[in-house]
Amino acid sequence: MNSREAKSRESCRDGTDGPSADDVPRRNRTATPPAKNEIPVRLGNRSYRVVLEPGLLSTVGDRLHALLRNPGPVVVVTDRRVHEAHAGPLEASLRRCGWEPRTLLVPPGEGAKTLAGAARLYDALVRVRAERSTPLVAFGGGVIGDLAGFVAATFQRGLPFVQVPTTLLAQVDASVGGKVAVNHERAKNLIGCFHQPAAVFIDPAVLSTLPRRDVAAGLAEVLKCGVIRSRPLFDLVERDAVRLLALDEAPLVKAIAAAVSIKAEIVARDERDLGERALLNYGHTIGHALEALTAYRSFRHGEAVAIGMAAAARIAVESGLLAERDAARQTAVLRSLGLPVHQSECSPRRLRAALFRDKKVAGGRVRFVLPRRIGDAVLVADVTERAVRAGLESICGPGSRAK
Amino acid sequence: MNSREAKSRESCRDGTDGPSADDVPRRNRTATPPAKNEIPVRLGNRSYRVVLEPGLLSTVGDRLHALLRNPGPVVVVTDRRVHEAHAGPLEASLRRCGWEPRTLLVPPGEGAKTLAGAARLYDALVRVRAERSTPLVAFGGGVIGDLAGFVAATFQRGLPFVQVPTTLLAQVDASVGGKVAVNHERAKNLIGCFHQPAAVFIDPAVLSTLPRRDVAAGLAEVLKCGVIRSRPLFDLVERDAVRLLALDEAPLVKAIAAAVSIKAEIVARDERDLGERALLNYGHTIGHALEALTAYRSFRHGEAVAIGMAAAARIAVESGLLAERDAARQTAVLRSLGLPVHQSECSPRRLRAALFRDKKVAGGRVRFVLPRRIGDAVLVADVTERAVRAGLESICGPGSRAK
Repeated sequence: MNSREAKSRESCRDGTDGPSADDVPRRNRTATPPAKNEIPVRLGNRSYRVVLEPGLLSTVGDRLHALLRNPGPVVVVTDRRVHEAHAGPLEASLRRCGWEPRTLLVPPGEGAKTLAGAARLYDALVRVRAERSTPLVAFGGGVIGDLAGFVAATFQRGLPFVQVPTTLLAQVDASVGGKVAVNHERAKNLIGCFHQPAAVFIDPAVLSTLPRRDVAAGLAEVLKCGVIRSRPLFDLVERDAVRLLALDEAPLVKAIAAAVSIKAEIVARDERDLGERALLNYGHTIGHALEALTAYRSFRHGEAVAIGMAAAARIAVESGLLAERDAARQTAVLRSLGLPVHQSECSPRRLRAALFRDKKVAGGRVRFVLPRRIGDAVLVADVTERAVRAGLESICGPGSRAK
Repeated sequence: MNSREAKSRESCRDGTDGPSADDVPRRNRTATPPAKNEIPVRLGNRSYRVVLEPGLLSTVGDRLHALLRNPGPVVVVTDRRVHEAHAGPLEASLRRCGWEPRTLLVPPGEGAKTLAGAARLYDALVRVRAERSTPLVAFGGGVIGDLAGFVAATFQRGLPFVQVPTTLLAQVDASVGGKVAVNHERAKNLIGCFHQPAAVFIDPAVLSTLPRRDVAAGLAEVLKCGVIRSRPLFDLVERDAVRLLALDEAPLVKAIAAAVSIKAEIVARDERDLGERALLNYGHTIGHALEALTAYRSFRHGEAVAIGMAAAARIAVESGLLAERDAARQTAVLRSLGLPVHQSECSPRRLRAALFRDKKVAGGRVRFVLPRRIGDAVLVADVTERAVRAGLESICGPGSRAK
C-alpha cells in the first residue's frame, strides 16, 4: 500500500464533472496534516486516516483514487439491504473516477460471518479475477466489515482494504483498528486476524435509514468511549442525547469524531490488543456473556454493552473505585438514550458461569475494565467475588432469578 | 509474544535431568547476540531466530521455555508419517520441560492444505481448549508449516507459532519468512497471510528419513540462493554435491545456514513481498507454471524450480545479461544433484500460456528474476518475447513439442 501511497496522488476530478464532489478538497494524503474531520490512526507504515463527512459517499471514488492511484477493478462487498439503500452514489462516484466496481452481495445478518461465507467470497474474488492490488471496499455494518476485512486480509496474503461503514456501531467502533474475523460455531470472532484498512470513509448521512434501536445501540459505544477516556464526550452525549437519537448532524459528527479519535489513539498504542486496548472492552465482558447466553437474539450488541456498562459501574462502586453519583449519571444517560440497564433473560448465576468461559479470562480470573471517574477507566485483575456478584445482581430484574 | 519474551527466560533444566539437553546452552534470547548456527530474522518487534543444530529436536522443550516462559498446553500440528518417525524426542523434550503437548494429526500430503483442512484444525483447537497464549508448533514439511501457520495466524487473531521443519525444502525455504497459506482449488496459496514465527528450530538430523529425491529437491532451493545472492554458497554446492546428497553433516549444516541467512536478509528488507523478496522467486515463475500444468503430480516443487532455473538462466543469456559459461555451470550443478533441467510434459506453447495466468504477472507482462552472474540476480520487467521463447524451448524435450 505504501509504495503506492508514496506515488502521485492527483485527484480524478478534472473540473468538468458534476458539482457533487467539486467541493471536496483532496485531503486524503498522509503527507499533509489531517484536515478537520480527518482522524489519523498512527501505526507506522500501516497508518491511515478516518475521514468523516456528511455526503462523503459520493466522493469515495475520488478519495480512493487519491489513496491508491491507478483506478481499475474494485471489489465492493455489501449486503442487499445496504446495496438497495445506498449503493447508488457510491458506485456512481467510483465509476466517475474510472473505477470498475464489482459488487459482491452477502446475505444480510450475522449468519454470513462464517468461514463458509468467507469461502464464498474467495470463490467470487477468483471469478472477478481480483489481483493482489485490487482494492476491496467493505460497505455495510460490522458484519460486512469483519467478514470482508478477513477476506481482504487473507486473499493473496492481503488486498488493499477500505472500510465504508453504514451503521453507527461500525462507524464508531468496528471499522477502526483492523480487527477482522469470522465466527466459529463455538465462539464469535474466533477466526480472524489484524488487517488495518488503507482508509475508513464515514458518511453519517447514510444513518438516516438506520432503525432508531440501532442508533441507540451505536450510541452505547460512543458513551463507552466517553466513560473510559473523555469527560467532554460523556457530557456531549448526556446533553444532546435527544438530538443524537434524532441524528442531528452537528452533535452527531462531533460524537462520532470524538469516539473514533479515542479508539484511534488507543489502537495506535496497542494495535495487537496486548494491553491498553482492553479498555475498549468496558461493558463488554458482561455484555458478551449476556449475548452468548441469549444466543445473540435478545439484544443488539450495543444494548448488551449498555447493560454490561451498568454492571461494570456497579462493580466499580462496590470496589470503592467509582463514586455512586457517577454510576447514577451513567445509568441516567443510558436510559435517556433508550438503552436497557437491566434484563430478565439470565440469572446472576448463569451470567457468572458464562463469564468464566469468556476468552477475556486470564489465569482463571475475570479481569474487568472499571471506571474510576467519568473519563478514566482502568483494567482491574483482582475484582472481588462480592463486587462481581453485586454487579450482576444489579442488572438482573426479578424475573431473572429462576433462570 | 514480546511482552512474554521480555520476561524471565530461565531454562527449564535444573541440572538433575538426563544428559541429552545439558550440553545445550541457553542461547535463544533475542537480547543476546546470536550464537553460531543461530540466524536472526530482523523484523522489528517481530524479530526471531532460526536455530540450526543436529539433534536439536530433543531440546525443543527447553528452547520453547526460554522463548515463551510459563509451560502449559502446547499444540503440535504434524502428520502421521512425521509423527511416527520423529515425534518421540520432540514430545519427550516438551514434557520434560513441563509442556503438555496436544498433538493434532493432519493427513500427509498437499491435500490437507485447504480451507476445509484449516477448519478441522480450528475445531480441534477449540476441542483442546487452545487460548490466545497457547503456542502452536508446526512439525513437518512445507504443507504442515503453511497450513498450521495459517491456522496459528487466524485462530483468535494469532497464536504464538514455532516452526520445526522436517524436510530440507521446508528448512531452507518455507519455514522462514512468515508466509503461511492454504490452497484454493483454482490456485495454490491463494488464501493466506503473513504471520512470522516466534522461532524456527531446524534439526538436520531428521532429514535422515527423507527420500533422496526430496533431498535433491531441497538442494535446488539452496542452489537458487547461491545463484541469486552468494557465489560461496554456489561454490559449496558445486564442490560438495555428492556429500550434500548423502546428508554429510558438515557441508549440510553450512549449506542450510547459508541459504537461511540469505532468505532472512531478504525477508528483513521486504517482509511483505513488495520488492526485493521477488528475487527468491528465481526459477519459480516457470517452475510454478510447470507444476500447475502437470497438476502437481509430475515434479517435486524443487524439481520444477530446477527446470525453471535452467530456463531463467537461458533467458538471461539470451538477454545478454549472463555469460554462457555461468549458465552451463548452473546446469552442471543441477545435474550433479540429480535434478532435471528439462522435461517433456509440456510444450513451450502451453508453458507460455500458463505464464500469463500466473499471479506474478504485473500489467500483462511477465517479470523474471534473472542472474547477471553467479551470486547476483535482478528483477527484469521487460524481457523480450524472443528470450522467453528461447528459455522455454531450452527446457522442453522433443517429446513435449506436440503437447
